[in-house]
Amino acid sequence: MLGDLTPTIKIYDTTLRDGTQGEGVSFSAEDKVKIALRLDEMGFHYIEGGWPGSNPKDMEFFELIKQYPLKQAVVAAFGSTCRPGVPAHQDTNLKRLVESGVKLATIFGKAWDFHVTKALNTTLEENLRMVRDSVAYLKSQGLKVFFDAEHFFDGFKANPDYALAVLQAAAGAGADAVVLCDTNGGSLPFEVQQAVSRVVRQLPGVPVGIHAHNDGELAVANTIMAVQAGATQVQGTVNGLGERCGNANLCSVIPNLAFKLGYQTIPRENLVYLTELSRFVYEVANLNPVANQPFVGESAFAHKGGIHVSALMKETGTYEHLAPELVGNQRRVLMSELSGLSNLLYKYKELHLDKNSPEGRQVLEQLKNMEHRGYQFEAAEGSLELMLRKAVNGYREPFQLESMRLILEMREQQPIYSEAVIKLRVGEELVHTAAEGNGPVNALDNALRKALETIYPRVADLRLLDYKVRVLEEKAGTEALVRVLIETGDGKKTWGTVGVSTNIIEASWQALADSMAYGLLEEQKLTVTNTKK
Amino acid sequence: MLGDLTPTIKIYDTTLRDGTQGEGVSFSAEDKVKIALRLDEMGFHYIEGGWPGSNPKDMEFFELIKQYPLKQAVVAAFGSTCRPGVPAHQDTNLKRLVESGVKLATIFGKAWDFHVTKALNTTLEENLRMVRDSVAYLKSQGLKVFFDAEHFFDGFKANPDYALAVLQAAAGAGADAVVLCDTNGGSLPFEVQQAVSRVVRQLPGVPVGIHAHNDGELAVANTIMAVQAGATQVQGTVNGLGERCGNANLCSVIPNLAFKLGYQTIPRENLVYLTELSRFVYEVANLNPVANQPFVGESAFAHKGGIHVSALMKETGTYEHLAPELVGNQRRVLMSELSGLSNLLYKYKELHLDKNSPEGRQVLEQLKNMEHRGYQFEAAEGSLELMLRKAVNGYREPFQLESMRLILEMREQQPIYSEAVIKLRVGEELVHTAAEGNGPVNALDNALRKALETIYPRVADLRLLDYKVRVLEEKAGTEALVRVLIETGDGKKTWGTVGVSTNIIEASWQALADSMAYGLLEEQKLTVTNTKK
Repeated sequence: MLGDLTPTIKIYDTTLRDGTQGEGVSFSAEDKVKIALRLDEMGFHYIEGGWPGSNPKDMEFFELIKQYPLKQAVVAAFGSTCRPGVPAHQDTNLKRLVESGVKLATIFGKAWDFHVTKALNTTLEENLRMVRDSVAYLKSQGLKVFFDAEHFFDGFKANPDYALAVLQAAAGAGADAVVLCDTNGGSLPFEVQQAVSRVVRQLPGVPVGIHAHNDGELAVANTIMAVQAGATQVQGTVNGLGERCGNANLCSVIPNLAFKLGYQTIPRENLVYLTELSRFVYEVANLNPVANQPFVGESAFAHKGGIHVSALMKETGTYEHLAPELVGNQRRVLMSELSGLSNLLYKYKELHLDKNSPEGRQVLEQLKNMEHRGYQFEAAEGSLELMLRKAVNGYREPFQLESMRLILEMREQQPIYSEAVIKLRVGEELVHTAAEGNGPVNALDNALRKALETIYPRVADLRLLDYKVRVLEEKAGTEALVRVLIETGDGKKTWGTVGVSTNIIEASWQALADSMAYGLLEEQKLTVTNTKK
Repeated sequence: MLGDLTPTIKIYDTTLRDGTQGEGVSFSAEDKVKIALRLDEMGFHYIEGGWPGSNPKDMEFFELIKQYPLKQAVVAAFGSTCRPGVPAHQDTNLKRLVESGVKLATIFGKAWDFHVTKALNTTLEENLRMVRDSVAYLKSQGLKVFFDAEHFFDGFKANPDYALAVLQAAAGAGADAVVLCDTNGGSLPFEVQQAVSRVVRQLPGVPVGIHAHNDGELAVANTIMAVQAGATQVQGTVNGLGERCGNANLCSVIPNLAFKLGYQTIPRENLVYLTELSRFVYEVANLNPVANQPFVGESAFAHKGGIHVSALMKETGTYEHLAPELVGNQRRVLMSELSGLSNLLYKYKELHLDKNSPEGRQVLEQLKNMEHRGYQFEAAEGSLELMLRKAVNGYREPFQLESMRLILEMREQQPIYSEAVIKLRVGEELVHTAAEGNGPVNALDNALRKALETIYPRVADLRLLDYKVRVLEEKAGTEALVRVLIETGDGKKTWGTVGVSTNIIEASWQALADSMAYGLLEEQKLTVTNTKK
């Protein structure tokens, strides 16, 4: 229910809309669907999917998301009020909102007199008409409507009566909530608190939201102060993505509200997925996670000082403001870089690898060296397991590469032609074959499958699900080191493999070869081992 | 003067001490000197150089810095109170502080009863003795002394009387300031405000400082609230470097205090060097600057939304909380699917592109379609400008590709061999050449340069600075769409270019070709245009 008076704070995520205003942030419609589903699962109340009137990609998202039954999240479409001089029912932008098929529209309108006259070039009275008329029109079409009062805090400072009149126009026309936006992001916590208190007093019964930007590095504080002053809806983005310095970071707002102030936000039991959510969104956005990000960053509970560590051993509360497990994060002690690897070895207990045996030490050394050279095994446990098997129990790959040749040809105005020729030793046989593809890696993948499939029919079940490239040491231009991560599945489970090289083809080959070898681990026992002496 | 009652807020920088507790942060003694000199020049009041009792590198800094006449900054050495049961004058740690030769010592002591009994294993009374005794000893040695009350806010919540008694012990023994530390970084703005107000009332005449950590993403807000409640000294670090989630970020605290609240901090005329200071410290620490960092980040005044840009053209105050020049930063306009024609017009005024002309609309349509297909122009303004020039003023590239062939060969146990053969039309000439590389893209880059350099000597000045690959629609495996971004520079300026294809080589070629074409824009006017009919 909207606007009840319990201390539940509704979480309104705008990662998919305002978040994409951030520099370097761009999501495909499919990316957006993935994120929306994750937010729904976590119990977010509202998911703003985009601005259907502004570009085709956003409209595509609204079409796609309809195919998924969401648990409880309400999808919102964003837009503006009608333009000056145009009746709401004739406004294209508002029509698009209705056409997008959502149940909730969030529209913004001006709350700062200066903006009305300067940016919009219209009268203060006409702006009130636009707000009223737009809200009323969308309500008449059966939508819920949230009204985002743009620049509310600047407007409130300049002309409080007018800023409040804008909110009253929206509320009077039936808006289901009014949201106070610190659009330029420069307001201070006490200003936000005072303004929100005034609005809550002035508009009894109307749910009030807060939408803060981080230009003063105060978005989280401003959001919290607004809630303490009576706001019941919080708008923000995962990891604080957003235009300029970003929006209020929900990964910080939510745990502050839930653990520090005792508000109900998303279900308490889902807060342990917060760290995973943060990293998932960085991954989809292809951004590097911010290590020192509060609550969810890799360094958020990393202790370096000797005094801190020794005190922590006595009592974790001594140097931690919160138990890291509560948000799905973990404590790290930076002195022992090897602890992560020990954990990995623990995972592969069935290989009976002893950390203190010569083999164990050697594998650890090798792993450390590989990580130093840019390998990363967290998302590539397939490659890791193959390496451990080679080291400790004489595992041999189901095939060895003899040679490989890739040829790419491009002529003006024609599509590029990609061909791979490979010669593999598979058990006793030597297989020499070739295939085309729509790119070099795809050609290589096709040739490898062709070479293996007569001997290992299971290859047909293996699907490459994901292919990722990251350029390491970016400043080296086209000579840089490249890491390729591949995710493969057989319909039952999935595994990741990794390759690193200055040559993207070589890195891709390493990851591809591992992906197949790992997928054939079981079948290999049934065939190759039998045919060998 | 310490503790006068004017609204001057003293800035105490601990980048060189607490900042180095951050993961991945490490400074040599020389690095520290470089930073200290810069801080002095900017007018910072106090520079905490290290903990002479804890490691030799810190002692080295105090030796080195003596050789430089600082303008006005006071260098501080950090340490702890004496240990339980040890008289201050016999404590090695305190002796080191005196030996370091500084005029100001900052020592921390426990203000949380739980810590006294749990971490320190002593009595509450003995802890008060340690504080009193240590401050008095350092004062007797002619030093100014600041007392850092560790965990003050947690202590104040748990046992306010004891927390205040600790401060009184320090003040009574002659401490020149008491500094309230939110050591675990989890306090909330209103808690900080209430506690500081209480301390200021309780200790009239004693200067009060604030030392906040960012574990709740609230360090800047907590610092500001403390100042508003009467604190007159602010401790923090440049860029918020520091243990776990970092310390209060002085690059945000200072402009908030100076521009938003009108306090005197460092001299007003030096605030224009804030952005430079931030980047300088990142550079020395060998860390990547945080693009969306408030005030000083590269994206801090970067505008992406079309509505924002069209309003900015009328009046910059419409979407900026502060003029970027005040902190030495600058406004940027980003291109993307979210931006309308306004952004384009604003950026490329000199191309005389008319928003209402058929060409103007066509370019915008083309741009939107390309972005829908995965192109991204905010980091690729070189490609964008070339596209606009083609559309509006008959620009022709300095070369056209006739054909290209790439051959990669790999044999077991041997490094992969990469060769590119290209045939280009350059003006009237047909150039056919080949080159090797350590990867396919590098080979292509080398061949392209070889083909161009005899005709365009400027090619030798162009450097590829960065190469990025992003797999779009990741779930399509090796058939996925790939976007390549390249950054190129000529020593004076840099530009980005983009390519998109299912074939990584084709995408790389597009971005490479654009990077050279853009770099040759000027030279082309001088040569090709002249040689052509």
